[in-house]
Amino acid sequence: MNNDTKYLPVIAITMGDPAGIGPEIAAKIFAMPELYQQCRPLLTGNAQIMRSVLSIAKVNLIIHSIKNVSEALFQLGTMDVLDIQVEHPETIEFGKISVAAGDIAFRSVKKAIELALAGDVDGTVTNTINKGAINAAGHHFSGHTEIYAHYTNSPKYAMLLADEKIKVIHVSTHVSLRKACDLVKKERVLETIRLLNEGLQQIGIESPRIGVAGLNPHAGDGGLFGDEEIEEILPAIRIAQNEGILVEGPFPPDTLFALANGGRFDGCVAMYHDQGHIPFKLAGFVWDEKSGSMKSVKGVNITLGLPIIRTSVDHGTAFEIAGKGIACPDALLCAIEYALKLFRSKEKG
Amino acid sequence: MNNDTKYLPVIAITMGDPAGIGPEIAAKIFAMPELYQQCRPLLTGNAQIMRSVLSIAKVNLIIHSIKNVSEALFQLGTMDVLDIQVEHPETIEFGKISVAAGDIAFRSVKKAIELALAGDVDGTVTNTINKGAINAAGHHFSGHTEIYAHYTNSPKYAMLLADEKIKVIHVSTHVSLRKACDLVKKERVLETIRLLNEGLQQIGIESPRIGVAGLNPHAGDGGLFGDEEIEEILPAIRIAQNEGILVEGPFPPDTLFALANGGRFDGCVAMYHDQGHIPFKLAGFVWDEKSGSMKSVKGVNITLGLPIIRTSVDHGTAFEIAGKGIACPDALLCAIEYALKLFRSKEKG
Repeated sequence: MNNDTKYLPVIAITMGDPAGIGPEIAAKIFAMPELYQQCRPLLTGNAQIMRSVLSIAKVNLIIHSIKNVSEALFQLGTMDVLDIQVEHPETIEFGKISVAAGDIAFRSVKKAIELALAGDVDGTVTNTINKGAINAAGHHFSGHTEIYAHYTNSPKYAMLLADEKIKVIHVSTHVSLRKACDLVKKERVLETIRLLNEGLQQIGIESPRIGVAGLNPHAGDGGLFGDEEIEEILPAIRIAQNEGILVEGPFPPDTLFALANGGRFDGCVAMYHDQGHIPFKLAGFVWDEKSGSMKSVKGVNITLGLPIIRTSVDHGTAFEIAGKGIACPDALLCAIEYALKLFRSKEKG
Repeated sequence: MNNDTKYLPVIAITMGDPAGIGPEIAAKIFAMPELYQQCRPLLTGNAQIMRSVLSIAKVNLIIHSIKNVSEALFQLGTMDVLDIQVEHPETIEFGKISVAAGDIAFRSVKKAIELALAGDVDGTVTNTINKGAINAAGHHFSGHTEIYAHYTNSPKYAMLLADEKIKVIHVSTHVSLRKACDLVKKERVLETIRLLNEGLQQIGIESPRIGVAGLNPHAGDGGLFGDEEIEEILPAIRIAQNEGILVEGPFPPDTLFALANGGRFDGCVAMYHDQGHIPFKLAGFVWDEKSGSMKSVKGVNITLGLPIIRTSVDHGTAFEIAGKGIACPDALLCAIEYALKLFRSKEKG
């Protein structure tokens, strides 16, 4: 798209659900000089809501309401907000699900996708939304990933969770554990290994070392506790190895993530949601006894297999601390950094 | 059994598989003054093997071969070994599975159980064994827990994994994930909550706070991804609460262990093997890039529901570093400490 090495990519960041911590952490990062050194950021959301949150976030910013990306100033001290109107903003309260909050959160995401598909922005970074609010507002999706897959017409996509040490992709996510067992099929496992390999290369790891988990305890222990390892997972690994992918497994699930955490693998393939999410959240989340909430959370969620760049914070709306000014913006900053990695890799070719 | 507060309990420690690190770490702890300050330890195993491992462990000990507990000296500088003969000791090599190694490992465990059942020792602590070796020697058990359950005739028992922060019990362990889903039944979940509550009290936590995991991602998300939470787990929790147990849940599995790690719960109920083992091993195990093996590992495995005391190291035989003198005895020492906690609680109550 651009050969100028000094080109600063334009990144659309979504506002998130205004009943949660999204607008607050957005305000906090737009006040950081390092953000503007790396990219040209704009926010898709509502200018009025953003204005109201500045004092909570304790930052000094001029909210610059725009209708098109071409109007953006991209200046530190100013936040360009691609303004989306909200009906009944008075019904939005911190920590409460509402139709108004769900609607603006959803439309901020949809707008970011449209901008990226049109080539008006180079990548998108999503903030926290509340699934209940989105659905209450009539938008029936189980999360960001599904919204992106739908509006970009992407049949093969997967969520890559990334933190410093553990990077994990899942063969299935939002299905029952019984259904997840059914989905452990050779083709699907192979597809997931390939997506992870490409995804890790896209975030800058040239020859990724991949570890694949088994489905059953002790990876089935030679067929003693289940045969998915023998029938489905190992054959998929063999094909991937023949394609030149540096992949090993299946490993006992309780060993793989400890190995990855110690640096043995660049990425892991989990067979189901919690197999990957449990170690990811344990390694990345910190429970803060004082505030009674999860803290920090540098985990980033990257959607692989889309025609556009999308990264996201992996934490929730944190309703319990919304409006208190104590939300930590680290994860949002990390998500932007990953979007920039993906952009640079795309530029390279 | 004894009202003398200065009474030092007699603890039988098993030698473990001599092809692994078991004898080495046993030798290391028998050389520690703090061991003898807390208990009167003896080893069930083979005196000749123990003698041969002293130079590897770099400790000075006199191996005192005995036939009965009454002959034990319990003196620092001497290791009392309740001697069990091995056939073909020459076939035992470090890092290799053999019938001889499996047989002596198994018989050391069986001996410890017999001593505890007879009241000759106050508790037992098991060292690492190799399942393949045990079975090659004709002893068909999938692990220590099953050996103990069998020889003590215990129908209801469970494995409690304990480290400083995470303590977890499982509704099922060595079964396929599909079978584990089938085993999530109200009665079984309730029984497991009760066992954990008692177990935590036995290790000195007076009013344990217990968190229960769901089976499905997001704990089923209100029935969207599976209904075991609604049909089986929640009803079990309600009954346990009515019995006065401080139990909450079901929690999304990827949140519960992060909460427990942060101090919110004293113990967790996992619905299946890896749900509990993944966070436990991630929190407690350290991968050492240099030696190419897992290090440290302070995790302890406690069998609840037995008529005798049994704790164990939770790591394996570590064949890859056996015979090198670099094995860390921390976990074995922790296991002994937990056995002493269980002993004191038994004495009290």
